[in-house]
Amino acid sequence: MSALTLAVLGATGLVGQHLIHILEQRQFAQRFGTFTLKPLASERSQGQTVRFMGQDVPVQLAEPDAFNGVDIVLASAGGSVSEALVPEAVKRGCVVIDNTSHYRMQPDVPLVVAGVNDEALKSHAGIIANPNCSTAQLMPVLKALHQAAGLKRVIVSTYQSVSGAGKEGMEALWRQTEALVAQPDTPVEKIGYESPGALDRETFPIAFNLIPMIDVLLEKPDVYQGYSKEEWKLIVETRKILELPELAITATAVRVPVMIGHSECVTVDLERALSPEQAEALLKNTPDVVVSPAMSREYPTPKQAAGQDPVYVGRLRRDSSNPETGLNFWVVADNLRIGAALNAVRLAELLITMNLLKFPSVA
Amino acid sequence: MSALTLAVLGATGLVGQHLIHILEQRQFAQRFGTFTLKPLASERSQGQTVRFMGQDVPVQLAEPDAFNGVDIVLASAGGSVSEALVPEAVKRGCVVIDNTSHYRMQPDVPLVVAGVNDEALKSHAGIIANPNCSTAQLMPVLKALHQAAGLKRVIVSTYQSVSGAGKEGMEALWRQTEALVAQPDTPVEKIGYESPGALDRETFPIAFNLIPMIDVLLEKPDVYQGYSKEEWKLIVETRKILELPELAITATAVRVPVMIGHSECVTVDLERALSPEQAEALLKNTPDVVVSPAMSREYPTPKQAAGQDPVYVGRLRRDSSNPETGLNFWVVADNLRIGAALNAVRLAELLITMNLLKFPSVA
Repeated sequence: MSALTLAVLGATGLVGQHLIHILEQRQFAQRFGTFTLKPLASERSQGQTVRFMGQDVPVQLAEPDAFNGVDIVLASAGGSVSEALVPEAVKRGCVVIDNTSHYRMQPDVPLVVAGVNDEALKSHAGIIANPNCSTAQLMPVLKALHQAAGLKRVIVSTYQSVSGAGKEGMEALWRQTEALVAQPDTPVEKIGYESPGALDRETFPIAFNLIPMIDVLLEKPDVYQGYSKEEWKLIVETRKILELPELAITATAVRVPVMIGHSECVTVDLERALSPEQAEALLKNTPDVVVSPAMSREYPTPKQAAGQDPVYVGRLRRDSSNPETGLNFWVVADNLRIGAALNAVRLAELLITMNLLKFPSVA
Repeated sequence: MSALTLAVLGATGLVGQHLIHILEQRQFAQRFGTFTLKPLASERSQGQTVRFMGQDVPVQLAEPDAFNGVDIVLASAGGSVSEALVPEAVKRGCVVIDNTSHYRMQPDVPLVVAGVNDEALKSHAGIIANPNCSTAQLMPVLKALHQAAGLKRVIVSTYQSVSGAGKEGMEALWRQTEALVAQPDTPVEKIGYESPGALDRETFPIAFNLIPMIDVLLEKPDVYQGYSKEEWKLIVETRKILELPELAITATAVRVPVMIGHSECVTVDLERALSPEQAEALLKNTPDVVVSPAMSREYPTPKQAAGQDPVYVGRLRRDSSNPETGLNFWVVADNLRIGAALNAVRLAELLITMNLLKFPSVA
């Protein structure tokens, strides 16, 4: 297990930077022997370096041959980059942990949240998908509730931060807020996004506003007509990770003027009664979850969750529309960590400790 | 109907100012004959004037005898003021439209949203209650859906603006945002509220954050243990206005860093199937409601709703957790108008046009 080489594809992006930071924080090198970090990015980032373990590591061009000799790739450069380069990496013997949505729903690609469905890693054939941020933070909570009382129906309303749209999203919120603080009556069209693609319509500011549409409308919606891609991801990824293909679940995804930290308001119908106190006790014993006292005034906010590893749960109480078997709660996590970089690094750790770096077929 | 005298109790507050502005906008005087505006407020506001119809009208002290000769009182000075002064006004022959929560759930006090349950006005005994802002904007929509297909269950997650907490809420968001724009790493404790009571805990900023708790936890929660007062209001007021005392309904109320405009993400289970297209057609014909095309990318935001009268509905689509009889949608309105001042003025208009200014018992 010595001389491991780990490539970060999209090393200069928001999640890429978090990946490198978390590799340091978790003492990846110290725990798994000397290893080489290979930061990869597009031509735009050539000549840049990334800081890692006290060294400035040059960013290399993300091209097929860059994956030669690499053991693990953490891919976070967008769906089209993953589509083009992940097969090249797999061809060269890498195991890829892909943060994009490109491979997530392929049947032969395990979709894994560390600590929730680690066993699924065993069936990988070179690619492991990291779920969408809004899905990932729900999984430890829903898994625990399902095991205890059976999930029957899940209704989610999200409150997602702009960092889910990358650096551009954060810059847009900051720029718009600055403009409005400087001159409160600045017309909307003067504070539009420079990069409309990052969030939604350039004519709608996100500063002091909400955008109830994240990502595009589904192109082939099937039964999900009128759903955004973000909502669809939350629905189908949850079913795949929990191995509940028929789970009744719906979601509405809303962008809020928060920098970091996604929040979710959740209603669950359970097969069997579970009191708020029982759910609290259960979640207290669930790894990666920090739960506020049930039915109390204590609650997590995105400001508190930002920069932290756990998934925070609060506002746990009976669902007054289904008091026998329903619960309401509020889930908050750092979307750049649990929802992206932290989970990717934990999956890399699991690949090593579970001895899954060679494909099962050639092991 | 000439020489009507209308008092605004709490005339210098945020809703009070909106009340006076809306009386002007709706040409109340022109439509209902010469009338006198009597702005009332506490000692703190003595010596101030309010601008109305081109005149500076002196603010008078809110005391029992100030109601002598007044026909209609629009009360918006907080629950404890209404508790003390509304009976005094009624004693003096006024009909009071009360914006506070103090009388809303009393069985002999009609709780009315103009255009939704106007008939309930007929049973008033001097006091008519205006519902909470987050309740009011839902009512035209839920009423229409109930009449068409029967409401079975309602699940609401709110995204409520700081103006719901009055001027202090708006000032807190503005001050905190200014501080963070000037110095992004300002510690939380340095940007706390000067008036913690207006929103929640002084240690949690609302700028770039969310507060998933509006108002206090219920003191005598009964089956609503762990619910905030704001959530309870939405639940019990909805049941009262729709005359559905057994309606299965739950709510989670969340404060968001938006100045004006409350948004709500709603899931409804209906008794009978209603397609998104049918619901769209229905809401197109519902007074006071503006609906975006079902299953489209068009949607309302609080920025657009601020300053406008209608209730805006968007994101209308099937609930994927209950595709047969469920719908999801997004409701946005100006909480200071539909949720407070506009509804109060419309109720005053109805009292006049329905000839309900004298109590039914003495009519």
